[in-house]
Amino acid sequence: MALRLPLGFRAGAVRAGIKPSGKPDLALLASGLPALWALATTQNRAAAPSVQRGRRLYEGQAPLRAVVVNAGNANCATGQRGVLDDERMAQTAALRLGVSLEEVLTASTGVIGVPLPVEKIEAALPQIELTPFADAFAEAILTTDLAVKTAEAQVGAARIVGVAKGSGMIHPNMATMLAFLVTDAALPQEALRAGFRRVVDRTFNQVTVDGDTSTNDLALLMANGAAGPVEEGAFFEALEGVARSLARQIARDGEGATKLMTVRVLGAATEEEARQAARTVAASPLWKSALYGNDPNWGRILAALGNSRAHFDPLRVRIVLQGIPLYDGGALPFDRGAASQAMRAEEVEVLVDLRQGGAQGEAWGCDLTEGYVRINALYTT
Amino acid sequence: MALRLPLGFRAGAVRAGIKPSGKPDLALLASGLPALWALATTQNRAAAPSVQRGRRLYEGQAPLRAVVVNAGNANCATGQRGVLDDERMAQTAALRLGVSLEEVLTASTGVIGVPLPVEKIEAALPQIELTPFADAFAEAILTTDLAVKTAEAQVGAARIVGVAKGSGMIHPNMATMLAFLVTDAALPQEALRAGFRRVVDRTFNQVTVDGDTSTNDLALLMANGAAGPVEEGAFFEALEGVARSLARQIARDGEGATKLMTVRVLGAATEEEARQAARTVAASPLWKSALYGNDPNWGRILAALGNSRAHFDPLRVRIVLQGIPLYDGGALPFDRGAASQAMRAEEVEVLVDLRQGGAQGEAWGCDLTEGYVRINALYTT
Repeated sequence: MALRLPLGFRAGAVRAGIKPSGKPDLALLASGLPALWALATTQNRAAAPSVQRGRRLYEGQAPLRAVVVNAGNANCATGQRGVLDDERMAQTAALRLGVSLEEVLTASTGVIGVPLPVEKIEAALPQIELTPFADAFAEAILTTDLAVKTAEAQVGAARIVGVAKGSGMIHPNMATMLAFLVTDAALPQEALRAGFRRVVDRTFNQVTVDGDTSTNDLALLMANGAAGPVEEGAFFEALEGVARSLARQIARDGEGATKLMTVRVLGAATEEEARQAARTVAASPLWKSALYGNDPNWGRILAALGNSRAHFDPLRVRIVLQGIPLYDGGALPFDRGAASQAMRAEEVEVLVDLRQGGAQGEAWGCDLTEGYVRINALYTT
Repeated sequence: MALRLPLGFRAGAVRAGIKPSGKPDLALLASGLPALWALATTQNRAAAPSVQRGRRLYEGQAPLRAVVVNAGNANCATGQRGVLDDERMAQTAALRLGVSLEEVLTASTGVIGVPLPVEKIEAALPQIELTPFADAFAEAILTTDLAVKTAEAQVGAARIVGVAKGSGMIHPNMATMLAFLVTDAALPQEALRAGFRRVVDRTFNQVTVDGDTSTNDLALLMANGAAGPVEEGAFFEALEGVARSLARQIARDGEGATKLMTVRVLGAATEEEARQAARTVAASPLWKSALYGNDPNWGRILAALGNSRAHFDPLRVRIVLQGIPLYDGGALPFDRGAASQAMRAEEVEVLVDLRQGGAQGEAWGCDLTEGYVRINALYTT
């Protein structure tokens, strides 16, 4: 499965010896041309140095040439030393590529509170072989993910390629989500940033595995313009498709998950309320447990909706599970056995019509399983 | 363990046949004198008719004489019929006591979306024998709780008695928390309501079992004045003690829980930030799983703090677990085995100093266990 990068991009990875498994753990993604870029980062107040550095560069507005990523160590809660180590990682990549320090973004994922073995990074990084393919990069950024996560799209002459890592959270890793999207389309910086913000709000920010937000989350879009201008509407539609696919892959690969949950909320007063309501349902431990047990317990969906900030009238709302209407302003008669059977699927869809307005939104999550608890509790110390 | 009610209060319970177990499930608590009262209810938008009715009466400011509670059926998502059934339940209690309909509050807990068998309530309620003791009442309001929850305090000549049910959430019940506090102290209505609000914010609202909020949550305080005036400061301190004890009992009895977690946050900029930070740690699934596994994983505590809205600097915050300092602006050296051993306790305390200001707050929760998932998923349909 060779995934070719858009024009002008190259990527590669190497074993630096950060992951205890000895798998590749240091990855580099670079553009031959200076790229315009957009960035979304975690809201966590204990954000890692890589995130803080990314935000600072982002304010500067200067073009970007590369991102260097290590997996196995989050370089978070590592004090002032962590800030310097992060800078050294960027410097090593800048030297390797012959670009300036400020043109290189960093990202880290893995154990928290342990100093980054930056010497290993300095030793290994020059050995990274850059190719026009995303595969080695996509593999190296994973931590406890069970699957590589990639997606692509074509927009006119341009292409978009996305790579992500998800929410594998085996101790002592955090639920870090990293996503890197690259395109050879040419777009104005302002449109790129506003459009990416919108796409992230509708996709990556709508993934919930356990409600915890990592200190290292980061989503990056680089556009080097090598394929020339594109129609903006078509571009952002395609970009949303790529991001949506990655978001779903992340949710599906949630720790201990046995199935993907998609929650679609229609008829909301605003898009934000739709998204918030969808997220609240997707995040409800009670409903996630019922999902695991194939229990069509719509009361938990209704209660979760009530916990969201979305406006609705319980006497008017409609809830449909796997195409089976369960509630419409009141309990509907339905075959409980058949509904439970319909929940035994790779993907379960919850459809909610709030009947308040015309806005809609989606969220993705997974079931809450004994496996999740085991992974995060029993197989640790 | 006979728990005597304050002067002028009587209570009792009966089997109405709502609980499948056949245990007592209809309870009545009454004051011979009209009582001033304060009420706190769920923020869930799908609030049950009993909650909505309680809010309406609350606005009216008229004194209260009684509360009637049924367990086994939440009478929620039951449409217009649910509203009428709730009114009939109140009316039945009012007739039994010879008071007016508007002097009787209702509370319900149990299955959602199933019509309330109000005829059973009408048949059974007149048989309730009222005594000066809280025990039968405290037993009848339970659903899947493993233990009766009561607390009491003395303030001068007055007494305070509190009774609660917690977050037993076996399908199809919801995580309903009900708390009833009664006192024979005499206090002005305004002070009573403001003080109760403050107490509830510091106690019941700081309990988190799984982050889901029920459609039926309700906490009531009745003060009939039979024992005369009290010093307000001493009264609210005692009231907070009673509410705090009940809140801790509720957290300890969380579904599948093997231990109680207390999170104390010091040095916050405001009391609200302290409470919010404490709650976010107590609610973190990652940290709750680590707690279950006796894993002193302070990174998860730090990340949870970062997810709260509290202001702090990760390079200055201090984290102490069971008296063992783990983090102080950076990782501290500690004996991991000894820390893990210290976590094998009935109660685990997390102490956080944000070093931002002088405010503090507490929250209570429990560990996230395979038992929680099993109770809510596997033993249902």
